[in-house]
Amino acid sequence: MSAMSATPKKNLMLFSGRAHPELAEQVAKHLDVTITPQSAYSFANGEIFVRFEESVRGCDAFVLQSHSAPINDQIMEQLIMVDALKRASAKRITVVMPFWGYARQDKKHRGREPISARLVADMFKVAGADRIMTVDLHTAQIQGFFDGPVDHLFALPVLAEHIKRTYADEQLAVVSPDSGRVRLAERWAETLGGTPLAFIHKTRDPRRPNEAVANRVVGEIDGRTCVVIDDMIDTGGTVAKTVEVLLKGGAKDVVVAATHGVLSGPAPNRLATCGAREVIFTDTLPIPDEKRFTSMTVLSIAPLLARAIHEVFDDGSVTSLFDGNA
Amino acid sequence: MSAMSATPKKNLMLFSGRAHPELAEQVAKHLDVTITPQSAYSFANGEIFVRFEESVRGCDAFVLQSHSAPINDQIMEQLIMVDALKRASAKRITVVMPFWGYARQDKKHRGREPISARLVADMFKVAGADRIMTVDLHTAQIQGFFDGPVDHLFALPVLAEHIKRTYADEQLAVVSPDSGRVRLAERWAETLGGTPLAFIHKTRDPRRPNEAVANRVVGEIDGRTCVVIDDMIDTGGTVAKTVEVLLKGGAKDVVVAATHGVLSGPAPNRLATCGAREVIFTDTLPIPDEKRFTSMTVLSIAPLLARAIHEVFDDGSVTSLFDGNA
Amino acid sequence: MSAMSATPKKNLMLFSGRAHPELAEQVAKHLDVTITPQSAYSFANGEIFVRFEESVRGCDAFVLQSHSAPINDQIMEQLIMVDALKRASAKRITVVMPFWGYARQDKKHRGREPISARLVADMFKVAGADRIMTVDLHTAQIQGFFDGPVDHLFALPVLAEHIKRTYADEQLAVVSPDSGRVRLAERWAETLGGTPLAFIHKTRDPRRPNEAVANRVVGEIDGRTCVVIDDMIDTGGTVAKTVEVLLKGGAKDVVVAATHGVLSGPAPNRLATCGAREVIFTDTLPIPDEKRFTSMTVLSIAPLLARAIHEVFDDGSVTSLFDGNA
Amino acid sequence: MSAMSATPKKNLMLFSGRAHPELAEQVAKHLDVTITPQSAYSFANGEIFVRFEESVRGCDAFVLQSHSAPINDQIMEQLIMVDALKRASAKRITVVMPFWGYARQDKKHRGREPISARLVADMFKVAGADRIMTVDLHTAQIQGFFDGPVDHLFALPVLAEHIKRTYADEQLAVVSPDSGRVRLAERWAETLGGTPLAFIHKTRDPRRPNEAVANRVVGEIDGRTCVVIDDMIDTGGTVAKTVEVLLKGGAKDVVVAATHGVLSGPAPNRLATCGAREVIFTDTLPIPDEKRFTSMTVLSIAPLLARAIHEVFDDGSVTSLFDGNA
Amino acid sequence: MSAMSATPKKNLMLFSGRAHPELAEQVAKHLDVTITPQSAYSFANGEIFVRFEESVRGCDAFVLQSHSAPINDQIMEQLIMVDALKRASAKRITVVMPFWGYARQDKKHRGREPISARLVADMFKVAGADRIMTVDLHTAQIQGFFDGPVDHLFALPVLAEHIKRTYADEQLAVVSPDSGRVRLAERWAETLGGTPLAFIHKTRDPRRPNEAVANRVVGEIDGRTCVVIDDMIDTGGTVAKTVEVLLKGGAKDVVVAATHGVLSGPAPNRLATCGAREVIFTDTLPIPDEKRFTSMTVLSIAPLLARAIHEVFDDGSVTSLFDGNA
Amino acid sequence: MSAMSATPKKNLMLFSGRAHPELAEQVAKHLDVTITPQSAYSFANGEIFVRFEESVRGCDAFVLQSHSAPINDQIMEQLIMVDALKRASAKRITVVMPFWGYARQDKKHRGREPISARLVADMFKVAGADRIMTVDLHTAQIQGFFDGPVDHLFALPVLAEHIKRTYADEQLAVVSPDSGRVRLAERWAETLGGTPLAFIHKTRDPRRPNEAVANRVVGEIDGRTCVVIDDMIDTGGTVAKTVEVLLKGGAKDVVVAATHGVLSGPAPNRLATCGAREVIFTDTLPIPDEKRFTSMTVLSIAPLLARAIHEVFDDGSVTSLFDGNA
Repeated sequence: MSAMSATPKKNLMLFSGRAHPELAEQVAKHLDVTITPQSAYSFANGEIFVRFEESVRGCDAFVLQSHSAPINDQIMEQLIMVDALKRASAKRITVVMPFWGYARQDKKHRGREPISARLVADMFKVAGADRIMTVDLHTAQIQGFFDGPVDHLFALPVLAEHIKRTYADEQLAVVSPDSGRVRLAERWAETLGGTPLAFIHKTRDPRRPNEAVANRVVGEIDGRTCVVIDDMIDTGGTVAKTVEVLLKGGAKDVVVAATHGVLSGPAPNRLATCGAREVIFTDTLPIPDEKRFTSMTVLSIAPLLARAIHEVFDDGSVTSLFDGNA
Repeated sequence: MSAMSATPKKNLMLFSGRAHPELAEQVAKHLDVTITPQSAYSFANGEIFVRFEESVRGCDAFVLQSHSAPINDQIMEQLIMVDALKRASAKRITVVMPFWGYARQDKKHRGREPISARLVADMFKVAGADRIMTVDLHTAQIQGFFDGPVDHLFALPVLAEHIKRTYADEQLAVVSPDSGRVRLAERWAETLGGTPLAFIHKTRDPRRPNEAVANRVVGEIDGRTCVVIDDMIDTGGTVAKTVEVLLKGGAKDVVVAATHGVLSGPAPNRLATCGAREVIFTDTLPIPDEKRFTSMTVLSIAPLLARAIHEVFDDGSVTSLFDGNA
Repeated sequence: MSAMSATPKKNLMLFSGRAHPELAEQVAKHLDVTITPQSAYSFANGEIFVRFEESVRGCDAFVLQSHSAPINDQIMEQLIMVDALKRASAKRITVVMPFWGYARQDKKHRGREPISARLVADMFKVAGADRIMTVDLHTAQIQGFFDGPVDHLFALPVLAEHIKRTYADEQLAVVSPDSGRVRLAERWAETLGGTPLAFIHKTRDPRRPNEAVANRVVGEIDGRTCVVIDDMIDTGGTVAKTVEVLLKGGAKDVVVAATHGVLSGPAPNRLATCGAREVIFTDTLPIPDEKRFTSMTVLSIAPLLARAIHEVFDDGSVTSLFDGNA
Repeated sequence: MSAMSATPKKNLMLFSGRAHPELAEQVAKHLDVTITPQSAYSFANGEIFVRFEESVRGCDAFVLQSHSAPINDQIMEQLIMVDALKRASAKRITVVMPFWGYARQDKKHRGREPISARLVADMFKVAGADRIMTVDLHTAQIQGFFDGPVDHLFALPVLAEHIKRTYADEQLAVVSPDSGRVRLAERWAETLGGTPLAFIHKTRDPRRPNEAVANRVVGEIDGRTCVVIDDMIDTGGTVAKTVEVLLKGGAKDVVVAATHGVLSGPAPNRLATCGAREVIFTDTLPIPDEKRFTSMTVLSIAPLLARAIHEVFDDGSVTSLFDGNA
Repeated sequence: MSAMSATPKKNLMLFSGRAHPELAEQVAKHLDVTITPQSAYSFANGEIFVRFEESVRGCDAFVLQSHSAPINDQIMEQLIMVDALKRASAKRITVVMPFWGYARQDKKHRGREPISARLVADMFKVAGADRIMTVDLHTAQIQGFFDGPVDHLFALPVLAEHIKRTYADEQLAVVSPDSGRVRLAERWAETLGGTPLAFIHKTRDPRRPNEAVANRVVGEIDGRTCVVIDDMIDTGGTVAKTVEVLLKGGAKDVVVAATHGVLSGPAPNRLATCGAREVIFTDTLPIPDEKRFTSMTVLSIAPLLARAIHEVFDDGSVTSLFDGNA
Repeated sequence: MSAMSATPKKNLMLFSGRAHPELAEQVAKHLDVTITPQSAYSFANGEIFVRFEESVRGCDAFVLQSHSAPINDQIMEQLIMVDALKRASAKRITVVMPFWGYARQDKKHRGREPISARLVADMFKVAGADRIMTVDLHTAQIQGFFDGPVDHLFALPVLAEHIKRTYADEQLAVVSPDSGRVRLAERWAETLGGTPLAFIHKTRDPRRPNEAVANRVVGEIDGRTCVVIDDMIDTGGTVAKTVEVLLKGGAKDVVVAATHGVLSGPAPNRLATCGAREVIFTDTLPIPDEKRFTSMTVLSIAPLLARAIHEVFDDGSVTSLFDGNA
């Protein structure tokens, strides 16, 4: 007989870039594994080097990295980790990016623009990624940018559960801060039990994004506690203005809920002072102490990520985590 | 000296599938070319055969096909034409699909679904397409499904021009038939000079999830001529119901405008009888006489396609056709 | 220790498009599995939608679809199923196409033609197919169109066994209906124990190239029961004429045997009335009752498909099913 | 103005491997160009090195190499030339292989075999070939192995013209040496004006499968000058036996015509002594003096290659060289 | 006649990222073009956005970006520019990276490391780059990482010319700072007219592998002006130590010459104070005023880049710029 | 329940081309498997045919072939074996090439040259190779030419162990035969315990560029036993001259050690007579008896290959075979 036989094993190994070690630790804890030790450092000119301290041959690798600022470094580090895993004979590589960098550049808004969200997908593909896991894409179509399986997780149950519990006695309305998120607001309204819906109608010159904008509330909010929802909050300008418009327009109170706290520059101050009663995020992106303020709540996405990773490893069902909707 | 030298020529050649010959003829007329003669027929089991009657070697090919019903035959015919052009040494192949088939399946709405709009892009890529030209994608992100240039044309100027001219004296409002097109409605409102905006909010009784749905108008429409807009109208159910709700809700009049008239089954009857004063389409898809009715207006997309094709051939600017917005 | 370990399982799951449910049921029965439940429907404009009702994560998927009329719909449905399986993390996807659509367009017969059989292979590749299983390709070279393993099964043993049993006492001759299938006829002749061989030679009058054609029998058939063989019968014209020529030319009797019963338009009537004693097919393609006639015999291909699928799943040998000849 | 403008030139450059310099010289002469000078040599272990002596930047390159013995060296040399052209910025690379190496291995004859003819296509693709030009493929389906344009030229007009002229007064019959070339024989019969057709049927005694084989002529040859045709002749065994069988079987005379003279080992002797009146080849492969014999005629393929190359360079029509049949 | 004909134009357009605008300006000036105007900015989280202000359709694009610190931002910006050019229908895209980022990680030094220099090549390929132009790769093999033409330019003539002119009367020796650049030193020695050669041999005490290292000069330097050469200088530690060792070891004087001045952290100070008489760089990377010191000389690479770009655009010869050696 | 379940097995199967059967036998013996039986033969024109005699479905295939002379045949045979394995459904294919053919052509030394070492990598990729295992690449960067895992093994421990044992009492020095292998020599010097280092510096008279070359020893060798190292020895000219120069220059004795014995033409004679005390190779390439001479030692690489193959099959660690340095 010519062959040597054996029964294969499969091994889940968890890898973490340096962007958000706390999240990786939490995921590891929920999975009851430890993060694979690695050397990772940056040269003075910014070049990143990564080397794994243990054999990764044949493993089922999950590579977690938050695409936080400085985002190009975080993306590049994750790409380099994927390249190293591919060349070290990992069996399967799942890129876990709780926030998909460049997701806002998901189309040419005008001619001669890039579609950077597709570029990100292609770069991970060419580096060696077999699959992607992500949370609350800016637009769900981005799944289609990757030529392979994308596990698209939703933070809505986590966020909505908190709001239902905290504001059980209030008359709620869901508000989209602009015309592009009304569908998402509708899904929220349904989840919260059929609340009214509104959105802010901006009239502006799209070629002068930094100039004065008139905001009008379309929909009924009078006397209600408005839940302003979004997938991410970056500089906080739009949301802060939305809160002000709603309060002026007769809202009783305003709560803000978003999955990704990008929270650039003036965002913490704007959100802390805009009049919102509570501002809720998940920790898909790291939110350091200096960006936190009293009315901010940060909910952990780690249990969801851990459960999804386990289902993927175990050939279970990620869809089942969302009652068949993912 | 070892080489033979010559000055290259470039030749625009226009090809047309059998889905919508009238549109192809119009485009050819505007370009002042004739459609390249070809043999095309279908075997009894549905297999399609195409052969070009002239040499296409080195040409700059534009292959026009509407993805109308029966859509899989139309797509397959266009794919086969692209394959034949590739193998016959066409220099560059631009697939012109005024309506991108399967554009509605642009994401997994739930788990274990296909992303057929991406599949369509990949099939044209593998067949040999270098570029795609299309009109009013269901979502603009679909551009990113193709690994190459996509010229995304907008019918809005054509449609809006008609409405501005026809309803110059009316008080207009723009209405999205559901929560997912509010952004598009906002762009319309801007184009029409800053009209009010509304959308139809579908609410479900959470205790009876599978039952009847109430539609509520969110936004101000009272006494106005409402322009209900959409990218496509298929069975017409949603739009017809929207028109009824608006008229009941105090609209003075309702006009419907959509780029793509898919117009399946009951659509013509529903639209003809729903109370709309006018229903406007372009001819990106063929609208045969038996689907037409008195209040329907069909505007030709051919001049726009011809100008865009000419710009592409001439290394001009397609963006410039839309004041820098395409 | 950083990793989580487990012993992998492998699961065979069988999927069926809507083209030929009876065949799928038979295959499932022979394998002792049930077909994976799915939602599949066609929109009014022809767009097809598919969603699986169970988790397919990690499965070894076999996707069965007959490329029967309307063939473009059947192909597209199978492509969409493959795309959905890829995105839902199936581990391996084997496309089972008992009849390979567009196999006749396997070369450019003249310039500026497509090679559609290669296009079909490429489309399945880009959709996500890892492997193909098929029966009696029009030409065996088509295997090479797919960049991956192709399990090419032969129906000849099934068909020949029937003929040997039924016509044990007759003097047989094998006849190819044209000059392109003489090799196949030779293989048949050998299988039937070394019978004589003949083929029909079509001659054109060179002075009247577009006119009537004389058919001449080349080879000895006198007084014999002729077995006319082919890989597929479409409109039946060639075969019916062959039967007539043979009977006129001195054949005692004629039996027709072909793997794929495409049977377009006039085929059933032609075959029923051409004088053949028996016409034998397998059920690689569905043959509805209205296409059946008294002298038709349909042999089931399901046991062969089931055995081959089992060997593929089990890392056994498909070649061994054909005594080392596949 | 930001750009620098120029009118592009296109330059045909002809390159030749070392397999068949005489053919390359003839093609160059017919095109009125000189072969691009290059350094090419083989190291002692067989490694091949090539470097072009002139700039090839932007050229339209035609790389001619006959796949003669030692065939792997010839193929590798051509691959290396293509790689060097790609890296030196040639604009377009057409691989001219008058004989496509490994064309006989165009399918798996049995399980666990390679499809080497497809491998050859893929190797040239990955090396950088944009297009292939070849003559009389073993099977026309091989065109579909390459993902790009294949110019498939036919030597039949050249060969048939010679036969028509030389044997104008004879009663001809066309004979295929086995059951797999009957279709080709039919095309010859038509070209020669409607001659009769025959083929050699090899029969095995089923009780002694590994033993001697009887060859039977199927078709009418009595008293005729038989033209035995094939695409290539390698060891000459089959053809020599065919000639004997025909002469014994009543043929008046036998002429042999084949495109590719592989002519391995005993072939020249066998052909010279088998009784054939004339044996005709083209020079797609080099036929050195020591393989030539009195009754051999070698026709030049160079004029056809040169005309086809010129049409490709000039965006003319290769199909037109064959009255629309290529 | 069915086609529309025109004579194609080709247009060179120069694009510049934000890493090194001075170099781009110099290249533009030498080419007599202006840099194509674009909007480029970075969001607060680091995401980069680029849009071209003019039509780029059909242009021959040269995209210049220095991979200086912060290197991941510079690489990402260039990738995004390439993506935008591809989608905007540029005809050909040449990536000009005077310094190839991550070139030092051109192999796995130990197991489980990435090969980041290959990753960079693949990312540019997938983004849409057709070709790469670069200067003095860390190892020449990196050319082979890109699947397409790489124009590899040499700064040696520029640097050596300066040294020959400045030190015409000195007795020179060329010194490699470690054992890996001796080949390069040999090429220098030849260019400078056959000077002696030396290198620094680092020896480790095998019993104390992680401890101090002794540097030994291998080769003759006594009384000579040593030219220490390297492709790049990053932190300057190795070179500074080399200068000291040489001066201690009897060198009369030391001059340092390197193509790429990465010059991280302590490098300027180290180089300014190590005792070298002159330190020479080109400006492939920006060297801001605060990193300059008295004995530093910066030679412009712009004329070389401009000439090479012109040759590429004009289908001339880049090799000829280096007397046939590039 | 719809699926059929099983526990997967994995089977290591070893395949061997015809280049170096002794090595394959040794590897098989160390692994305790037998080489998979196959039919392999060459046609008279050089075409190679391979067929496996056992089912290879689902196996973990290791395909061993030495790239010895005639190298293009050996490479082609290995490619064809990979193609056959891919099409026969092998699960994973590792190409074991102890010597990577064309490794010396790893860059364009001058313009218009190929990068054949990359071409080799791409050909194996397109044929179906998943991974490559090789020994002592000419330059380590070649790993990056393959898009996948490369297990790069080192023969240095094997060779150095022999030298340490044999020359334990000698004063050693390590010598590189040219300026390009000094780094390798440094690694040897370290392995041998910190010996001195030297290299041969070739100087050309710049006024007579095409004439004789003077070789100078740079470094200290006086009275020492010099170990001349290289990765491969082809014609032996450089090494023989090095030995002479060293002996003339004061070396006590000279030993030569190289991994790959290409040994073309005059090499055995040159090495036998150059004055070297011992010449040591491994058997990565076959060294037939007629190339052996008295002072030659051949060490077996089979144990190393077998151990590495076992680690790969077993998902162990290849890096660990080299103390973490591979």
